[in-house]
Amino acid sequence: MNNYIQAGNSVLNAQPFSQFLGARLENLDKGLAEISLTLRKEFQQSNGFIHGGVISYMADNCLTFAGATILGHVVTSEFKINYLHPAVGEKLIAKSSVISSGFYQAVSECRVYVETGDKNLLVAAAQGTVVKIKVESKSEST
Amino acid sequence: MNNYIQAGNSVLNAQPFSQFLGARLENLDKGLAEISLTLRKEFQQSNGFIHGGVISYMADNCLTFAGATILGHVVTSEFKINYLHPAVGEKLIAKSSVISSGFYQAVSECRVYVETGDKNLLVAAAQGTVVKIKVESKSEST
Amino acid sequence: MNNYIQAGNSVLNAQPFSQFLGARLENLDKGLAEISLTLRKEFQQSNGFIHGGVISYMADNCLTFAGATILGHVVTSEFKINYLHPAVGEKLIAKSSVISSGFYQAVSECRVYVETGDKNLLVAAAQGTVVKIKVESKSEST
Amino acid sequence: MNNYIQAGNSVLNAQPFSQFLGARLENLDKGLAEISLTLRKEFQQSNGFIHGGVISYMADNCLTFAGATILGHVVTSEFKINYLHPAVGEKLIAKSSVISSGFYQAVSECRVYVETGDKNLLVAAAQGTVVKIKVESKSEST
Repeated sequence: MNNYIQAGNSVLNAQPFSQFLGARLENLDKGLAEISLTLRKEFQQSNGFIHGGVISYMADNCLTFAGATILGHVVTSEFKINYLHPAVGEKLIAKSSVISSGFYQAVSECRVYVETGDKNLLVAAAQGTVVKIKVESKSEST
Repeated sequence: MNNYIQAGNSVLNAQPFSQFLGARLENLDKGLAEISLTLRKEFQQSNGFIHGGVISYMADNCLTFAGATILGHVVTSEFKINYLHPAVGEKLIAKSSVISSGFYQAVSECRVYVETGDKNLLVAAAQGTVVKIKVESKSEST
Repeated sequence: MNNYIQAGNSVLNAQPFSQFLGARLENLDKGLAEISLTLRKEFQQSNGFIHGGVISYMADNCLTFAGATILGHVVTSEFKINYLHPAVGEKLIAKSSVISSGFYQAVSECRVYVETGDKNLLVAAAQGTVVKIKVESKSEST
Repeated sequence: MNNYIQAGNSVLNAQPFSQFLGARLENLDKGLAEISLTLRKEFQQSNGFIHGGVISYMADNCLTFAGATILGHVVTSEFKINYLHPAVGEKLIAKSSVISSGFYQAVSECRVYVETGDKNLLVAAAQGTVVKIKVESKSEST
């Protein structure tokens, strides 16, 4: 386990919403993040597909973790998401990589897949910006 | 209660994720939707603010409901969200209105506010597209 | 003519691309901008409609001018645009207003209309972010 | 020269705005497009950088060409662009690839670079949707 993962796990564990949904950090390295979420009936919309809000949470969070590996404490400033395919399956996997970063902000892309057995289907593509924030000592942030 | 609200409530009640979070339809009329969500500790991120994923869920869902009042059964195709202010408070309120619609798709905007006592603060602005889908009889969709 | 318009005109006149296309500042006030562009055959795409690139230029520029009335020297950081209707007519008119601003950035929305005679048709909706930049003395920027 | 390039060149040559600016098709293949633009003083904004409107034109057009290799006659429905670095140089190069496509629409990503000598700098990242349109015989479209 690299240092990024250790730090990332403390942040994810300190996010009540991520704990509420059950997100897990699968990988974290400089400019790269991967987060998974085991799917439950509670995450569906009315037609049995996973709700877009769950998928956008995954994209938002994964963009933020990728940017944080470069900038430290960050918040998501904005993002855009295209839903590409209805999501039905066992697990969502979001993978994000930083496209460009400066002192103050980083722009990243994210792909969200749904996994069923050993098959992965791309269900969403996102692109967004995270910005560095100042954090007082002791508090964790992302 | 107008017919839009009645139909909208059946859809919202049939969305497990919206029930899981506790979203409520506050208003629905031709081209307009308003959804609220009472905030709980489980919706926070690590710094005490409401997680962006909760706010993006609200935007996504509200865009969809607004578009559905014109197009019927729809899914969100894509949206973009700018987070404008950290959200801390008692309730999120999303208001969406349709900017333009055709036979096949509708583009809407959404504003998300956080309410504390009698004060409302704008915390996010979104813009997105919903597209009409064909639905077999009996199934509800949005 | 208010002070915003005077300052805005110097910036627009100093933008070679805006001069190349022929853009005009119609209005500028705190948090608000309006820019017009007389349409020419050169702005079309292959099917006779105005090229999306012309419309996105109008949105980009108008978002920037609106934000600059609050933040001073700015550049566009990002924006999103939905094309709503094919644009055919005599003039494009972009109107932008600031949704939210802080010390460092402003988020604005923009609507682009095509004018034919005395009729206006909404052809695009955009939302984007401008960020403040430091500018050395003497240079104009936006 | 493959068939895509031949067809793509007829479309690009039939776009007055692309001719006005001087865009060139560098490559076109199934799901992939590359367009270049030799930079001129007319394309600048007030601070000497290339105007965002020129860059967004390149992204818009390149997204459209990539999608057209799969769907045929298309128009851009929406896109989002992040400007990553001020553009100063000799040539813009936009490269787009299709992320996902269906019968009716395709979602693509685009990267825009500025070339100076033998160096390329990434200046923008975009993501957008093109939709298939019906075209009467004889007319070219994209």
